[in-house]
Amino acid sequence: MIYLDYAAATPLDPRVLKAQEPYLTDQFFNPSASYLAAQNVRANYEAARHNLAQVIGARPAEVIITAGATESINLALNGVSGKILTTDIEHASVLSLAKVRDGVVIPVDAKGRINLSVLESSITDEVELISIGYANSEIGTVQSIKEIASIVVHVRERRKSMGIDRPLLFHTDASQAAGYLDINTARLGVDLMTLNAGKCYGPKQVGLLYVRAGIQLRPLVYGGGQEMGLRSGTENVAGAIGFARALELAEKKRKAETVRLSELRDDLEAFVANEFTDVVINGHKKHRLPNVLNISIPELDGERAVFALDQAGVMVATGSACAANKGTRSHVLMAIGLAPEVADGSLRISLGRLTTQSEIAELKPILAEVIRTQLKFGAAHA
Amino acid sequence: MIYLDYAAATPLDPRVLKAQEPYLTDQFFNPSASYLAAQNVRANYEAARHNLAQVIGARPAEVIITAGATESINLALNGVSGKILTTDIEHASVLSLAKVRDGVVIPVDAKGRINLSVLESSITDEVELISIGYANSEIGTVQSIKEIASIVVHVRERRKSMGIDRPLLFHTDASQAAGYLDINTARLGVDLMTLNAGKCYGPKQVGLLYVRAGIQLRPLVYGGGQEMGLRSGTENVAGAIGFARALELAEKKRKAETVRLSELRDDLEAFVANEFTDVVINGHKKHRLPNVLNISIPELDGERAVFALDQAGVMVATGSACAANKGTRSHVLMAIGLAPEVADGSLRISLGRLTTQSEIAELKPILAEVIRTQLKFGAAHA
Repeated sequence: MIYLDYAAATPLDPRVLKAQEPYLTDQFFNPSASYLAAQNVRANYEAARHNLAQVIGARPAEVIITAGATESINLALNGVSGKILTTDIEHASVLSLAKVRDGVVIPVDAKGRINLSVLESSITDEVELISIGYANSEIGTVQSIKEIASIVVHVRERRKSMGIDRPLLFHTDASQAAGYLDINTARLGVDLMTLNAGKCYGPKQVGLLYVRAGIQLRPLVYGGGQEMGLRSGTENVAGAIGFARALELAEKKRKAETVRLSELRDDLEAFVANEFTDVVINGHKKHRLPNVLNISIPELDGERAVFALDQAGVMVATGSACAANKGTRSHVLMAIGLAPEVADGSLRISLGRLTTQSEIAELKPILAEVIRTQLKFGAAHA
Repeated sequence: MIYLDYAAATPLDPRVLKAQEPYLTDQFFNPSASYLAAQNVRANYEAARHNLAQVIGARPAEVIITAGATESINLALNGVSGKILTTDIEHASVLSLAKVRDGVVIPVDAKGRINLSVLESSITDEVELISIGYANSEIGTVQSIKEIASIVVHVRERRKSMGIDRPLLFHTDASQAAGYLDINTARLGVDLMTLNAGKCYGPKQVGLLYVRAGIQLRPLVYGGGQEMGLRSGTENVAGAIGFARALELAEKKRKAETVRLSELRDDLEAFVANEFTDVVINGHKKHRLPNVLNISIPELDGERAVFALDQAGVMVATGSACAANKGTRSHVLMAIGLAPEVADGSLRISLGRLTTQSEIAELKPILAEVIRTQLKFGAAHA
């Protein structure tokens, strides 16, 4: 089997599981208990928070450990009461909250990038939080987070000079960026940042929200007051320890993996472009993740192609996993302006740590054959 | 080491970890992906939900998998907009939400039991949800859930006959009850029920909320629409599978463990009562968990006793773990009317699956010795 759906889920790194093992077995103590064994668990949990903070250039008290990206995003966006501004290619959680909260949704261009002047002019005085994904999970387009952060600073200063009290916060969902892009919060200039362990070879059901010191969010979950009062409930010790190990490893391998995977991806892209002259390569040519190739082939039935590839031993996606499961057309592909019949012929091939050159070599003829057969089959039914 | 803090945390049953292992390694696929391997993961996740539902006498669609009891409680209580009614010995999450939501908090008696007439007369027309813990984590007192459910039905009928539209829901936090008491939702007559895998030898950071069919809650977390739209985010596959296995095992062992542990607990209680004639046994003599012994010894410094016991190889609690960690006096012991100096001398000894007769025999002289030394030490300082 050739797994090429790393943007949907990454396998747990065996070193991560090894780091977690004591906390899944002997070290099961409640970190809030008084005896020494429990206090050691607490210390190791806090050490994990410290390590997570270090990778993202933050202080430990700025790291809130959550049950994953969706919770982190909800904590960030529900933590403020003013208007939310976002884009039309964000994760379902951001778009759902923008809808519930009557938010402002700005469009992206045909490559999935935000127009920074459109963004700036959309920041009305009611906007309190801007949420923009660092890298899109479907098409891999990367936004200029630093530039957006500068705009936010500029608007904040303007508000201050005009005596407008409303704060302005900038949140980015960096779930897909970890392991490929710079996720140092100080360098990026973000106020809030979401990460997901399950997307960077860490345990599932663990994420974090970076909350810059001084920002007061409203909790989603009340109780014992854990996680600086922002996320009550017994701490996820094994999860945090695994996440810290995974993020350290991802950061360590980041530059080499970025080079390695973009070469493999470019090679595959060139092959597809050569085989199918009418293929559309979705996303930005330059500003994109190194591991994502999203293609659309007119007349192809993407869903059927995914099943045929699965039977041939290749696991890829068409649109996002969530959307795929519900049989709805990808909102991201619609947002970048693809015609429905082009969007329906899309495949997302996402590479990862276990992807090799020989796997890509093996994939090429399978992919070409499946697409050709499907196109013929589609034509026969047309 | 003798671990006697099972009410704070239970070790993971090795059979549970074994059931989880494939999903921590090979079967890492996103259950929303289309290929067969991911669909198998989805099927096994849904099978776990089915098994959880079976143990609690519910339908699978009535089981929402969460990140633990605190989240489940928040989902239940924040799911409605009307007033909340609860008691003064509930978990911190219930009491925090009651505070935030301007709820009604009724007292319990000196044994920690609710007076049912007080309860009934406190259900004003504004009350929409009643939240009462099945068994208290500190003193082990068990409430008459079936009788409370009958009162709720009665009030509902009265409301209906009087043309009052407001629904009335009954939620119970059964986290401490699992493995000892009947948690069949149909027999109990509850509308909402919280369970916590980490308290019944299952994985940490997993819980469930039973939501009776027909009840419309408001989600805490928005996004991809997972868990019947009530809890978005990629599903916790390994967690759910481990939880299902743990709950099945707990239910299977329930009757035998209840007999075995209440015998050990009663034996220990008799020993303590004999050694220290002024000891106060907290909680109800009859309506209590089989595994919890909460004692107060006037003049004892409970916190110091816990440290001394720890040094002698025995792990127990004083008050709840959360409260202990913050150096605050237990709200439960205050609610049952203990004088501060009596409450401060309390120890919670909670037994569990690995507790043996020889462990209790070993504990007795250590416990007597530590208490005596601490009392002398306290007297010397008085």
